[in-house]
Amino acid sequence: MSSHSRDSWKVSSSIVSKRTSNPIRAIVDHIKVKPNPDKSMISLALGDPTLFGNFKIHQSCTDAVVKQIQSYKCNGYPPSTGYPHARKAVADKFSTPEAPLTTQDVILASGCSGALEMCIGVLCNEGDNILLPRPGFSLYQTCADSKGIQVRYYDLLPDKNWEMDLKQLESLVDERTAAVVMNNPSNPCGSVFRKQHLLDFLKVCERQHLPVIADEIYCDLVFSGNEFFPLASLTKTVPILSVGGLAKKYLVPGWRLGWIFIHDRNDIFATEVRDGLTSLSQLILGPNSVIQGALEEILHQTDKDFHDDTCTQLEANAKLSTDILSKVPGLKVIVPQGAMYVMISIKVEEFKDIPNDIVFTEKLLGEESVMCLPGSVFQCPNFIRIVFTSPPEILQDAYNRMAEFCARHHI
Amino acid sequence: MSSHSRDSWKVSSSIVSKRTSNPIRAIVDHIKVKPNPDKSMISLALGDPTLFGNFKIHQSCTDAVVKQIQSYKCNGYPPSTGYPHARKAVADKFSTPEAPLTTQDVILASGCSGALEMCIGVLCNEGDNILLPRPGFSLYQTCADSKGIQVRYYDLLPDKNWEMDLKQLESLVDERTAAVVMNNPSNPCGSVFRKQHLLDFLKVCERQHLPVIADEIYCDLVFSGNEFFPLASLTKTVPILSVGGLAKKYLVPGWRLGWIFIHDRNDIFATEVRDGLTSLSQLILGPNSVIQGALEEILHQTDKDFHDDTCTQLEANAKLSTDILSKVPGLKVIVPQGAMYVMISIKVEEFKDIPNDIVFTEKLLGEESVMCLPGSVFQCPNFIRIVFTSPPEILQDAYNRMAEFCARHHI
Ligand SMILES: Cc1ncc(COP(=O)(O)O)c(C=O)c1O
Ligand SMILES: Cc1ncc(COP(=O)(O)O)c(C=O)c1O
Repeated sequence: MSSHSRDSWKVSSSIVSKRTSNPIRAIVDHIKVKPNPDKSMISLALGDPTLFGNFKIHQSCTDAVVKQIQSYKCNGYPPSTGYPHARKAVADKFSTPEAPLTTQDVILASGCSGALEMCIGVLCNEGDNILLPRPGFSLYQTCADSKGIQVRYYDLLPDKNWEMDLKQLESLVDERTAAVVMNNPSNPCGSVFRKQHLLDFLKVCERQHLPVIADEIYCDLVFSGNEFFPLASLTKTVPILSVGGLAKKYLVPGWRLGWIFIHDRNDIFATEVRDGLTSLSQLILGPNSVIQGALEEILHQTDKDFHDDTCTQLEANAKLSTDILSKVPGLKVIVPQGAMYVMISIKVEEFKDIPNDIVFTEKLLGEESVMCLPGSVFQCPNFIRIVFTSPPEILQDAYNRMAEFCARHHI
Repeated sequence: MSSHSRDSWKVSSSIVSKRTSNPIRAIVDHIKVKPNPDKSMISLALGDPTLFGNFKIHQSCTDAVVKQIQSYKCNGYPPSTGYPHARKAVADKFSTPEAPLTTQDVILASGCSGALEMCIGVLCNEGDNILLPRPGFSLYQTCADSKGIQVRYYDLLPDKNWEMDLKQLESLVDERTAAVVMNNPSNPCGSVFRKQHLLDFLKVCERQHLPVIADEIYCDLVFSGNEFFPLASLTKTVPILSVGGLAKKYLVPGWRLGWIFIHDRNDIFATEVRDGLTSLSQLILGPNSVIQGALEEILHQTDKDFHDDTCTQLEANAKLSTDILSKVPGLKVIVPQGAMYVMISIKVEEFKDIPNDIVFTEKLLGEESVMCLPGSVFQCPNFIRIVFTSPPEILQDAYNRMAEFCARHHI
């Protein structure tokens, strides 16, 4: 409770804004080291595939947007959950026989971030707890903290391709556990869950009557030998809010077009949760109308070749990363299976003067002008995360520098 | 506090989502009357100037967006507060000698709605109270309710061109009053405050040390004889968060590009409130990158003629509305001075069978297929709000029907 004295100008920021903190910023902003001025800067830190032009969006997407802009037809307010035809286009695209979707089951949001905010906001009360993956995308925590929801981390196991520790996960559940967030394919792990693992996860959710928020924004970005299964296609009983968007698969994160799929074949979310999502959508009124107007064409005219191309490039970069970095003494690469990330374990005991991932990151930046994120920002100390969307020659350069760096600091 | 039983699938929606309710929906969704099938439907309910094509956006805006799309340069993530060059463009455009703005003072948001959400969220805690105008834009209440902030309404006085009842306003302030929202030009009133009235308002804020959220989204949309004064240009001491956006002045509400101006010449908002706004901006990551990329051109190449044209058209429509409706027995028009709205008082005592604004709205819809919003959705019973952005011939038709309707029901 705050009390505003009326006889002076003392204005505090709200408790909510104070507890809305981004772990990435909290850690990265404390890195005071400057890049080495003699070496060009290479950032492998940002999950933004558009930075270099090697991942270029498909022309059908730009064409669709230009067409809408020039039609002057979608500059007005869409309904807060999105234009019905845009929601239908998404439903049609992502519906499967095992997990059918209709227009009513789709809500458009301001990016997948906006979708996550709404899903966490509709399922959890202040004082509830929510299960989050560790390592995991930091927005989950930011969002939960912001709302006063207690965070409980379940571990992903690096030695098992980052599978969820389901035993531990289940042990965290109590009567105040409102939801579990799962993320597949994973940021920051680059992992893709096997079907059986997803089935085992669903069994836990079933047993505990635990609603799931499935963050599937990297859906279909998987490498050979792996397959992506939408979680909702594997259950007839567990209610799932699945979130995604254009950001990664269509390579347009700045467009801020995300969605929620309400998978709820036994009316567990109806009517409360559905109504709740609609209510929350009215606060900021959803994503840009022009992109919404173009959505149908974007989804239906961007051909399979485009996505295959993206995956091929990503996979080649993943292989390059693994090939070079797994030969570097002191590092252990957990081979990625999808998405655009690889987590690398730092064997700190093998280094002279690198006690942890944050020091590793700082020194690497200061000496080699290579920036990556310390695992600590994902609650996973002594790892680093690399985004491998830069062009191969840049990756090569960065990895060579990392190899020299490690050699220099190795015992 | 909620407790989730673990042996059944009972999933409730959160308290926050339950208290996030839109008064417009709550009232309008209960209107079960169907339009008269023999008459074409005319809606004068939506504050969306793009519906008919008579208010068309300027080609420089579409050109700027097309250029950005085709540059492939702004599809990635902007910083959560917006691209610096876009923030600078806004600062340059809206800076005045009396209320200077720099890049640091501008935060881009997902529409003015998103801006309002952040401003209310950063200044107010659950349990605080906030002063809102009555009648007023319903999102203020939705947003405050959503956050558990107590709403206290101060009255706007219809007989004084909807000026604020400043005495009453001041009487509502106590030690838990975190902010006051003022809206000029006003939705739903169509009023534009005189300079002296704004100065008097600022005196109250000064005396009470009350931070202001100034909703100036209709800035410059004023009719002859009136002038718009940015609130911040009239004070050197009162800290003001002023919100606005492209929606109304540039006729593109669907683009969802809004902003916050931090007017704070005595560092009352620094550093807490500034930091708090930045934190809150990280939850959904701001507006569409392409529109941000185009912002500089939109703001600087849309010529004065375009805005003058908009105002001329709006003013003509306002005059048409006033001329016809003020001759209708049973109605009293409060002459609008700006924006795109007019409030009309229903003299219920003069009608046989119309006890209030909601019944008026229902019967008008059922008999004449004309839809307007009952004042109750703005906390202002026995008024109706008309949006006068439809083409004149449609307005004429609607008003003729309203005149017949009133004649029929008049005593
Ligand atoms: C796992 C995960 N979920 C959600 C998001 C946010 O997506 P958007 O940019 O659509 O808000 C990201 C972005 O990096 C992500 O990695
Ligand atoms: C007074 C007022 N403020 C804010 C808004 C919301 O603007 P935006 O569409 O940019 O969210 C509106 C929209 O009608 C409004 O009337």
